[in-house]
Amino acid sequence: AEAGDAAALTALMEPLHPADIADVLEQMDREPRDRLIALYGHEFDGDILSELEESVREEVIATLAPDVLTDAVRELESDDVVDLIEDLDEAQRSEILDALGAADRLAVEQALSFPEYSAGRLMQREVVTAPAHWTVGDAIDFMRAKEDLPDQFYHIVLVDPRHQPVAYVTLGKVMSSRRDIALMDLAEPSFRTIPVTQDEEDVAYAFNQYHLISAPVVDEDGRLVGVITIDDAMAVLSEENEEDLLRLAGVGDESLSDRTLQIARQRFPWLFVNLLTAILASIVIAQFEDVLAAIVALAVLMPIVASMGGNAGTQSLTVAVRSLATRDLTGANALRVIRREITAGLINGCIFAVIMGVVGVVWFGTPMLGIVLGAAMIINMVVAGLAGILVPLTLEKVGVDPALASGAFVTTVTDIVGFFAFLGLAALLLL
Amino acid sequence: AEAGDAAALTALMEPLHPADIADVLEQMDREPRDRLIALYGHEFDGDILSELEESVREEVIATLAPDVLTDAVRELESDDVVDLIEDLDEAQRSEILDALGAADRLAVEQALSFPEYSAGRLMQREVVTAPAHWTVGDAIDFMRAKEDLPDQFYHIVLVDPRHQPVAYVTLGKVMSSRRDIALMDLAEPSFRTIPVTQDEEDVAYAFNQYHLISAPVVDEDGRLVGVITIDDAMAVLSEENEEDLLRLAGVGDESLSDRTLQIARQRFPWLFVNLLTAILASIVIAQFEDVLAAIVALAVLMPIVASMGGNAGTQSLTVAVRSLATRDLTGANALRVIRREITAGLINGCIFAVIMGVVGVVWFGTPMLGIVLGAAMIINMVVAGLAGILVPLTLEKVGVDPALASGAFVTTVTDIVGFFAFLGLAALLLL
Repeated sequence: AEAGDAAALTALMEPLHPADIADVLEQMDREPRDRLIALYGHEFDGDILSELEESVREEVIATLAPDVLTDAVRELESDDVVDLIEDLDEAQRSEILDALGAADRLAVEQALSFPEYSAGRLMQREVVTAPAHWTVGDAIDFMRAKEDLPDQFYHIVLVDPRHQPVAYVTLGKVMSSRRDIALMDLAEPSFRTIPVTQDEEDVAYAFNQYHLISAPVVDEDGRLVGVITIDDAMAVLSEENEEDLLRLAGVGDESLSDRTLQIARQRFPWLFVNLLTAILASIVIAQFEDVLAAIVALAVLMPIVASMGGNAGTQSLTVAVRSLATRDLTGANALRVIRREITAGLINGCIFAVIMGVVGVVWFGTPMLGIVLGAAMIINMVVAGLAGILVPLTLEKVGVDPALASGAFVTTVTDIVGFFAFLGLAALLLL
Repeated sequence: AEAGDAAALTALMEPLHPADIADVLEQMDREPRDRLIALYGHEFDGDILSELEESVREEVIATLAPDVLTDAVRELESDDVVDLIEDLDEAQRSEILDALGAADRLAVEQALSFPEYSAGRLMQREVVTAPAHWTVGDAIDFMRAKEDLPDQFYHIVLVDPRHQPVAYVTLGKVMSSRRDIALMDLAEPSFRTIPVTQDEEDVAYAFNQYHLISAPVVDEDGRLVGVITIDDAMAVLSEENEEDLLRLAGVGDESLSDRTLQIARQRFPWLFVNLLTAILASIVIAQFEDVLAAIVALAVLMPIVASMGGNAGTQSLTVAVRSLATRDLTGANALRVIRREITAGLINGCIFAVIMGVVGVVWFGTPMLGIVLGAAMIINMVVAGLAGILVPLTLEKVGVDPALASGAFVTTVTDIVGFFAFLGLAALLLL
């Protein structure tokens, strides 16, 4: 029966893309997943491993029989192996490295010698090159004769005698040109090289900004060491965007397949920081116990001031963090953007001051309470605009990811300023 | 002198990529920008227009002399023209359409007949095709003979006699194979077609999920109408991610080059929604005026409960919105994720209940206050986990972008539940 089940399973999985199989595995609980993998057995495709997200991948690798794992990994390109093992622990890592042939192992180990998140980790080492003095005919003859061209390539990189890339040509141009044309005459204007130590975030930015399809990677002497293609850059871009989104919400590298305890632990630090800042705000409120005891309406209305400031601050902050990531916010226009945020805060602050002032008067029948509420609103929304832009700019300047820490700072500022302005003005004008 | 300035400017701009020139223009104030463009004059490159963001682009197009605009647009590929004019007003749109040759105009008008944000708008119409029965030699001879191959192409699409795509081959494979090999034998396993009406978000997802480089686009009869390449999909992915990030923070399609008044107006609606929900929370607080008047400590501590719930809710919400966007959260695992969020909320709720309980006792010396604070914390964090996942799931189900509206709902729930639980328990146990 088990053999029959295995055959049925294989037939069911056959038409699925490895990425879809990986998604199915990620959505399953561990125990049925392990049984499914055991049943699937020797058919296990290396590409499925590449597609799995980190936390599930570790568990699956631990489950696979050594020979199945070996077969799965041997099928992969060297850059996929690098991607696969850089997150694994030492034991799993050497298990996989041992499974590779000597040449592949060397390639993977060299890639791992580059810093994490660098172009060196991202690139593939197989590049199709041609001397810069060749003609179309030379290139075609060379390619027809060559046994082991990479699976996917889009450009031929032209190199000088020192193996420094000087240009590239697209296969389409080569194909449609006469044999006697010099390759250099077909060079693409989009050509640019990427330093092997460049951060992968900058690599993704360059691909998106300059519409690159592939780009040669060079070492510090300008010599060609590999090539990065747009699909790898697209994956990085997607990850970086996800990271910013999650970090802004105070969530770490969390994925949907993480276990409950992991989730709770990952979210705890940000919640704890938030607790400290909330206590700070409470200490501010505590300074005004006399006013609060005298006028209970203040306790009813004060969360509105803080909440509006927090929201306005988050708006400014998010635009700033995104603009820093896309390099739209720079030293050149920072002052202009700061001025704009303050003015926008002032405009909306004034409008909401009027609305809130009216609400305060109508609700509690005290005109002065309306004035206090409106004034506090204006102050807090201007401060929100200012904090929303200055905090991420400052963090970026000192080398901290602004997406990571800005939120806590900004809402702390708007909470404290909001409560202080509202209760302080109330103490001055209402007591 | 002006002629000298113009020459100097051109020399300065020459080495810059159009995308970088566009960035410079976006960072300038309108008046100096207009003067720079006037000076730059006839050299104005159509690609710069493509790279500009919408708000600046409209202003620049309004500035350009008609003949400069005409020249700039004529250089562009038809899909870039579509991208350029779909956001313009009617007058600017027809000005550009009139500048095009008859064939280009037809192509652009056909593209515009597809729904906005559909594959039809994204695709380019120029595709290199070959009959499915051809050999490598046939394809090479055909390409050498063809005059007007697209600038960039990576695949040859194989079509049946009814012009329905059945496979594709990479240029690299064609180049490195013998002339007598059938093209079908070189077909790539990654082949998949895209319906012309498919939403561009789904197109980007398919490219990212299946590592596509290009994909043929088909009409409802399965006939080839165009091709989408990965660079276009990458741009869409980047925009979609940006949209989710900004919408979660209550910011619309805002860009850094928008004017102050625009900014203030775009942010107003979300702030107004937030005001309404904050007033709702205040109404809840108002129900407990007696308790607040009796125990001022409650007013000092109540923002902590609301703030912690809001943060925990935002964490769950952000993970849920992202997982919906990446198709990781589906009907199949929704129940499991809901259970997980509730449990994680319970775990962290209990930990913070202990911390906060101690804080409450130490600060105000009332053990029962600590118990009230802790219990309210547990209730609110469980509710936060539940709301953070249920709200986006429900919105997605009824067809509203969960990134757009979830934040307001979730923080409303956590504010109201937080204040009600804390003050309600206090009324029961402390009065």
